[in-house]
Amino acid sequence: MQNFDYLTPTRLIFGKGVIKNLPEVMAPLGQKILLTYGGGSIKKIGLYDKVKELLKDFEIYELPGIQPNPKYDPSVLDGVKICKEKQIDVILAVGGGSVLDCSKAIAAGAKYAGDPWDLITYKVKAKAALPIVDVLTLAATGSEYDSGGVISRTETNDKIGYIDPLLYPVCSLLDPTYTFTVSKKQTAAGCADAMNHIIEQYFCADSTLLNDGFMEAGLKSLMVNARKCLENPEDYTARAEMMLTCTYGCNRIYSLGNSPSGWPCHGMEHALSAYYDITHGEGLAIITPRWMKHILSEKTVDRFVKYGVNVFGIDPALDKFAIADKAIEATYKFFESIGIPMHLREVGIDESRIHEMAHHVAANEGLDKAWAPLLEEDIAAIFTASL
Amino acid sequence: MQNFDYLTPTRLIFGKGVIKNLPEVMAPLGQKILLTYGGGSIKKIGLYDKVKELLKDFEIYELPGIQPNPKYDPSVLDGVKICKEKQIDVILAVGGGSVLDCSKAIAAGAKYAGDPWDLITYKVKAKAALPIVDVLTLAATGSEYDSGGVISRTETNDKIGYIDPLLYPVCSLLDPTYTFTVSKKQTAAGCADAMNHIIEQYFCADSTLLNDGFMEAGLKSLMVNARKCLENPEDYTARAEMMLTCTYGCNRIYSLGNSPSGWPCHGMEHALSAYYDITHGEGLAIITPRWMKHILSEKTVDRFVKYGVNVFGIDPALDKFAIADKAIEATYKFFESIGIPMHLREVGIDESRIHEMAHHVAANEGLDKAWAPLLEEDIAAIFTASL
Repeated sequence: MQNFDYLTPTRLIFGKGVIKNLPEVMAPLGQKILLTYGGGSIKKIGLYDKVKELLKDFEIYELPGIQPNPKYDPSVLDGVKICKEKQIDVILAVGGGSVLDCSKAIAAGAKYAGDPWDLITYKVKAKAALPIVDVLTLAATGSEYDSGGVISRTETNDKIGYIDPLLYPVCSLLDPTYTFTVSKKQTAAGCADAMNHIIEQYFCADSTLLNDGFMEAGLKSLMVNARKCLENPEDYTARAEMMLTCTYGCNRIYSLGNSPSGWPCHGMEHALSAYYDITHGEGLAIITPRWMKHILSEKTVDRFVKYGVNVFGIDPALDKFAIADKAIEATYKFFESIGIPMHLREVGIDESRIHEMAHHVAANEGLDKAWAPLLEEDIAAIFTASL
Repeated sequence: MQNFDYLTPTRLIFGKGVIKNLPEVMAPLGQKILLTYGGGSIKKIGLYDKVKELLKDFEIYELPGIQPNPKYDPSVLDGVKICKEKQIDVILAVGGGSVLDCSKAIAAGAKYAGDPWDLITYKVKAKAALPIVDVLTLAATGSEYDSGGVISRTETNDKIGYIDPLLYPVCSLLDPTYTFTVSKKQTAAGCADAMNHIIEQYFCADSTLLNDGFMEAGLKSLMVNARKCLENPEDYTARAEMMLTCTYGCNRIYSLGNSPSGWPCHGMEHALSAYYDITHGEGLAIITPRWMKHILSEKTVDRFVKYGVNVFGIDPALDKFAIADKAIEATYKFFESIGIPMHLREVGIDESRIHEMAHHVAANEGLDKAWAPLLEEDIAAIFTASL
């Protein structure tokens, strides 16, 4: 078991109707709010109006139109500009992980005199950030309970994970009913994203009975509840459990004390969605089983056996490589069964830029130091197998 | 799934050698420290000297001699007196759950002009508390990661759980090597205490796949690792996993969103250790299987089936009451196998005050509102079965 230093300062207010707490949460943080959101779904479900009504005594500025795989330019830069011009006190992110991730970069950029890209690339360590509150509308990334965000810069094909303890939200308001209208495609992609968060932490050299059991429960919960959400989008219990299981995803609570894994699938997927702007969860679902197959070896097989037996109920009496193969197959089949396109070609990616992407990942993501190290040729092979 | 509002502001610094962080942790909290500890084991293991050496630039006052089942008088009252007289800035608790619980009551009492008992009995709501930092030396209560403490008042046989968000430690330094010298008796009692914390949360009307899996993993982890610690007290990995599994015990993280259970075994055990000053974890181990047997019914049996199958690997094809009986038996046998005396008579309790204790519990612990409600006669029956 590894040493660790852990603190999550985020308050979770969870359940039906918790939006009513919003004024009480915002009041101590200031009067001037930057309200950030995406393409307008919060207007369709009435959440935008509800927020405006609850916060009628505050001074609200808006940054709408934040896209999936949120962009440095214009979203982050526009947000920082508003914060500086209007002397914003607090950011209220209403949406999913992309809105949150973008808001985190804005929060840090707002308190920095230079180019916010310096912070995102760790050229400069942020000294302060605006407080962030969020109202979540999508169960997926766990950004509502972590200190990171991922920002894309189109012109350089960069998609960078930016992590700093200053970026934990002060409070996340999690009402599962706001996810009732999430499409089947996004529900499935959210499930795949959250499953991959757990898988990234599970496959490592050193874990515990406690963490393994917690993560296995998380994976089983996601599979069972995602299916229920797809069958009945207004199944409150399923939406609620899926939301909480996703919320823990990147918070470290699933794996405190585990040895680092390197998060290889995320490292590879960042290139896919940076170059092709695909849905992050779909990219992860496509890569994950191919990565598993690629790294399966005498050194890694025991983790696959545990995963296969405890998550998928595979017969522990089988040969260990047979269990591993079945576990990888079961992972693939599950993603396929919830409607995820399982080939890169289906999401518009062909072989033309695979080597360019593999080179980019190898140069930037440090996967040569992952639990199962990946060099440029490994990454290219995984991409090719995913076509 | 139930609504919840959750925030744990405690920083966990975990692992071998983390004591070196103590000066950095204490510095922002103030210069005048009240150092609280128990019967002197921290001197035997060199921790007292280490703390004094690390904090040589601080002004340290001491409250030694805090007993198991910590007492209002003298410990809490003495501590409050020192804090007020010396204008203490921060309490440093070095020890196990009793030292921590006592320090929490002192922390609140120090900031209150009246009798601290008003706070502990919720006659008055605390408005402030001194910050608390702890260095844990016993894996058991989870007080290092929760906002509660239990205080005993000998003359009235009261043992009261005092909970307030002000009482979360600012930081808990958790070095498993400090538990190497914990006796077999206390190691086993700590395991039983922590297992009961999970059992109290597990047996409820409404849980999730995620929480059940997390709790089942916690129970299995405690059983496996307690055995290893008993066999080899210096097994770092086992001590470490046991410590973290215990730390989560009363933090709510095992069961966020679950319906309340009423914590019936704790309600009953409080009377045993208030009247007889027995070891809390032993009292819990003795009561738990008798409580299980008493509440087993058509209404509760399904939880026992899940517990029996997932924690003890009992054949799910058996009749459900047969599974439940086996699960209760396995619980008893486990406690017995780690050396816990499993009869009240073995810890000095006979039938003479059972009805008095049952009356006290029924009047004060609200167990008529527990998941499986307990009236005075139920409590007396469980005590009697535990003799």
